[in-house]
Amino acid sequence: MLFASLMACKQEPSVKTEPTTVQTTENSDPLPSWNDVASKKAIISFVKDVTTEGSANFIPVEDRIATFDNDGTLWSEQPTYFQLFFTMDRIKQLSANHPEWKDKQPYKAAIEHDLKTLMQQGDKALFDMVMEVHGNVTAEEFDKMVKDWIATAKHPTKDVLFTDLTYKPMQELLDYLKAYDFKLFIVSGGGIEFMRAWTEGVYGIPDNQIVGTTNKTEFDYNDGNPVIRILPELEFMDDKGGKPVGINKFIGRKPVFSAGNSDGDLQMMQYAASNKYKNFELYVHHTDSVREWAYDRNSPIGTLNKGLDEAAAKGWTVVDMKNDWNTVYGN
Amino acid sequence: MLFASLMACKQEPSVKTEPTTVQTTENSDPLPSWNDVASKKAIISFVKDVTTEGSANFIPVEDRIATFDNDGTLWSEQPTYFQLFFTMDRIKQLSANHPEWKDKQPYKAAIEHDLKTLMQQGDKALFDMVMEVHGNVTAEEFDKMVKDWIATAKHPTKDVLFTDLTYKPMQELLDYLKAYDFKLFIVSGGGIEFMRAWTEGVYGIPDNQIVGTTNKTEFDYNDGNPVIRILPELEFMDDKGGKPVGINKFIGRKPVFSAGNSDGDLQMMQYAASNKYKNFELYVHHTDSVREWAYDRNSPIGTLNKGLDEAAAKGWTVVDMKNDWNTVYGN
Repeated sequence: MLFASLMACKQEPSVKTEPTTVQTTENSDPLPSWNDVASKKAIISFVKDVTTEGSANFIPVEDRIATFDNDGTLWSEQPTYFQLFFTMDRIKQLSANHPEWKDKQPYKAAIEHDLKTLMQQGDKALFDMVMEVHGNVTAEEFDKMVKDWIATAKHPTKDVLFTDLTYKPMQELLDYLKAYDFKLFIVSGGGIEFMRAWTEGVYGIPDNQIVGTTNKTEFDYNDGNPVIRILPELEFMDDKGGKPVGINKFIGRKPVFSAGNSDGDLQMMQYAASNKYKNFELYVHHTDSVREWAYDRNSPIGTLNKGLDEAAAKGWTVVDMKNDWNTVYGN
Repeated sequence: MLFASLMACKQEPSVKTEPTTVQTTENSDPLPSWNDVASKKAIISFVKDVTTEGSANFIPVEDRIATFDNDGTLWSEQPTYFQLFFTMDRIKQLSANHPEWKDKQPYKAAIEHDLKTLMQQGDKALFDMVMEVHGNVTAEEFDKMVKDWIATAKHPTKDVLFTDLTYKPMQELLDYLKAYDFKLFIVSGGGIEFMRAWTEGVYGIPDNQIVGTTNKTEFDYNDGNPVIRILPELEFMDDKGGKPVGINKFIGRKPVFSAGNSDGDLQMMQYAASNKYKNFELYVHHTDSVREWAYDRNSPIGTLNKGLDEAAAKGWTVVDMKNDWNTVYGN
């Protein structure tokens, strides 16, 4: 409808998000943290092509859907997913009422922030611990818990707030696409309630445009003070084939722009690549061992193996973090 | 939608949804299909109060979440939910390949459009038939199927397109709230894929703001032509306690404005009523046996019993369709 309204007003001077914005963008560099390399040129060329009226590849506003993975794509994910640091801190907090945890794995390792030992406890034990922290609480309580944590907790080696580890070049990309009327969505394996506590403030993406892994929830009338209770039980895993499933369920349209950094994003890329409109697939490749981390095919976190091959075969854009970005972090 | 378009174009130098728009609204009647009665006055008074800067009840734009039920709230639902007419027509279409259906219930009744017999077949048989029609198909195929149907199928007694049975006063209300920067969502027991095939065109609400009942789906790489397959299996029922659950999952924020017409909407109303901000709950009461239908406490479709009592007890706004609306249908 926005599009319809804009069309109806086409003769009128200024309507939100139209030429004035675009012109400003054209006169300055919309992606200053990107070096003047192929990836940057490809992005700008795509955006110009699909948003210029009269272009053979023009995409109507309502179909300008862009989906971004979060961990490793919009912020760092080493030495492990930041949501796991939240989990460890929460376990430590809860351990005051669970004296038995100090000798029991994986709780002991979590309380001690012993990541190496924690990772050796197996997926099932880790998963159950994550569920324990993320369930048994109301949605409102969980939101406050994450907000409090993210405002103060520091990364173990970088010693800064986790939100200071978002990538400036990607923030610029979000803003750039937004200026051209793309609707931005995060589609992440991370927890939906965990992300929504801070993503709107940090990325400017509204809660209802955040797609993630969900726990089962239930409504409780609670004697006239209704709450949503989060249960310690997985409902939907927004990873691999789950990403296009989540996109179809939450967004209802196929993306024309899709960005990720791991094999967990591959199906989302394939889905976007099947769009009838011209489309853009972008892989962030972690090549910067000095400013960030360098890892790909053999990394347990953020494995990029099949994705790297498919990107090469299909001509998707692969961002070489070390060489393509002049700045890594910042809002 | 015409209303929103006019608003966007009327002012110079028009910026969508800004103060200029608000002034335009003040100078004309934003709800012309509503008689000058208490319900209309209450709506306008609420919207003015919560959107005027400096008001004690001011609600920031990002929290102006409005949720609307669909069946019986935005369009009619008699003699049964319109999605069931789609189901019957689809069964009739499929019956060419199922000669055994013509003697087997509930298929026989569906093929014959014998609603009375159909309703006697029990919930389980009906549910299985609905699943049969809504599953076993790709999301893209299903979308096309519904689009084709809704463009041509006629209501059995009104003899007009089903989309001609949307309520003009409610369309005006959607446009009015949108002009004041409310973000509109449909939260319906209807199928999410069924609605998304036509709701954006009819209500101007984007696909990712449509919350409904979902089937399980899966991603199929399909030899390089990826598709989402809809399975004939229920995933989530967006009704009663499922409505606040769906709101929390898809929207992530509590509504400040909520509209429904049945007991299936009661939990959504209770949830909105618990908002820390001033909030508005609206029940459409079907009282017009001439222009629409008259039913409430004892109707098998759209039962409004507990909701009517709770609305009276809590002072929620109940719209008397016969007396409050000077026009019922229209876009």
